[in-house]
Amino acid sequence: MPRLTSNGAHDARIVAEECAVALVYDGTTAAVLMATPADLTDLARGFSLTEGIIGDIGEIEDLSVVPGPDGIELRLWLRPDAGRRLKERRRLLVGPTGCGLCGIDSLREAGRIVPPVGHTACLAPEQIGAAIAALTEQQTLNHRTHATHAAGFFQPGSSSMMVREDVGRHNALDKLAGALAVEGIAGSAGAIILTSRISVEMVQKTAAIGAGLVVGMSAPTALAIRTAEASGIALVGIARGHAFEIFSHPQRIYGQRT
Amino acid sequence: MPRLTSNGAHDARIVAEECAVALVYDGTTAAVLMATPADLTDLARGFSLTEGIIGDIGEIEDLSVVPGPDGIELRLWLRPDAGRRLKERRRLLVGPTGCGLCGIDSLREAGRIVPPVGHTACLAPEQIGAAIAALTEQQTLNHRTHATHAAGFFQPGSSSMMVREDVGRHNALDKLAGALAVEGIAGSAGAIILTSRISVEMVQKTAAIGAGLVVGMSAPTALAIRTAEASGIALVGIARGHAFEIFSHPQRIYGQRT
Repeated sequence: MPRLTSNGAHDARIVAEECAVALVYDGTTAAVLMATPADLTDLARGFSLTEGIIGDIGEIEDLSVVPGPDGIELRLWLRPDAGRRLKERRRLLVGPTGCGLCGIDSLREAGRIVPPVGHTACLAPEQIGAAIAALTEQQTLNHRTHATHAAGFFQPGSSSMMVREDVGRHNALDKLAGALAVEGIAGSAGAIILTSRISVEMVQKTAAIGAGLVVGMSAPTALAIRTAEASGIALVGIARGHAFEIFSHPQRIYGQRT
Repeated sequence: MPRLTSNGAHDARIVAEECAVALVYDGTTAAVLMATPADLTDLARGFSLTEGIIGDIGEIEDLSVVPGPDGIELRLWLRPDAGRRLKERRRLLVGPTGCGLCGIDSLREAGRIVPPVGHTACLAPEQIGAAIAALTEQQTLNHRTHATHAAGFFQPGSSSMMVREDVGRHNALDKLAGALAVEGIAGSAGAIILTSRISVEMVQKTAAIGAGLVVGMSAPTALAIRTAEASGIALVGIARGHAFEIFSHPQRIYGQRT
């Protein structure tokens, strides 16, 4: 994209693409997001998992990415039982309180406490700095555009890190969730590492992935901390260089299992 | 909130609150957001304006903030004509393609090109650095929590700046839109200044406010730039200290009116 800098120079900067992406289940749209058009099958699978639409990616019978003039449709066809469950859930929510994603039920849903995660990996304090450094190094899209978030999965003892990027922090984490599921990697085997702030949805998604640790470069919100506390998740924030702050379940960091 | 730092110290950190907030029009919920529970009447009015639910805050007959166990309801009662318009819009959108905020119509809606803004204020280059400095100084919530975004309205020649903060960047801008409307300040009189990245929705909201300039500390996306170009809005990104980059309509910065 052409740009004009404050010192009067004309040159070009690489900027991040974003486009409207619709998640369409069995022919019915459930959500429209603005997202980076990369790793969209990961996004479709991960969104389905972390939003609880499916419990396992085997419940998706078919998945196609269909670009159109106004955006991209991610068309998912579910196994009959999963499809029926989604339709039932929609029927319960549609009504005088509004649309399927809103209403009184969603005020409750929005602050939902997710079931506690069970036995998961622990991190040594020095691994937190290593994980942040690995995530920073692998933000290839952000290195070019300076406009994207990243979510990574750090496994103690593994030399590689799975990373996904997106203009939206929720999408980056959903893409990671989908990629982990495709690879058959259990969330309990590692920690979620985020470039972003940790708001409550990021904790809820971490719990849906089954990971017991979430580490963010920026600060958490109060509700995120309360949710992490209730869900058995160690929440580590303001992780920069080798410094960090632990806001819940420190036993998962220092190796003292509960 | 108690925390444990990486050097083993136990102390307390002030973290940002967030809670579920439902926007309820004439008894029907239109949206549920996670938001910072401050300036909620500004949020209600600004969301209604930037989402095009009302054209003027005079169309809101009554507005109340109702806290409940699962979150906060912002209950708005619209003037009959505005209420009918909203119902009609809902009826058009509800159907086999999903809920009122989704579907094919929303893929189109998501990328909508807003009508070009007309004659607006211009900024001198040195005012951009001054505006960023003023916004940074007035982020009182962020100074305590390091977890909130801010949106400010800079008017050339004015010594004060209106600023609103929120854990969500969209909410911060909506709160600002509501506050400007309450004060009767025309968006065309100044520039929107943001701590955040500039994605397409931020440009759409800037256009709805009627401002011809949007300045962000971080980078814009490609779609945001295309939308700003089409809407007649000067988009300035990566504004730090006195440096910045202009991605569209530079004539609004250098005083050369079109």
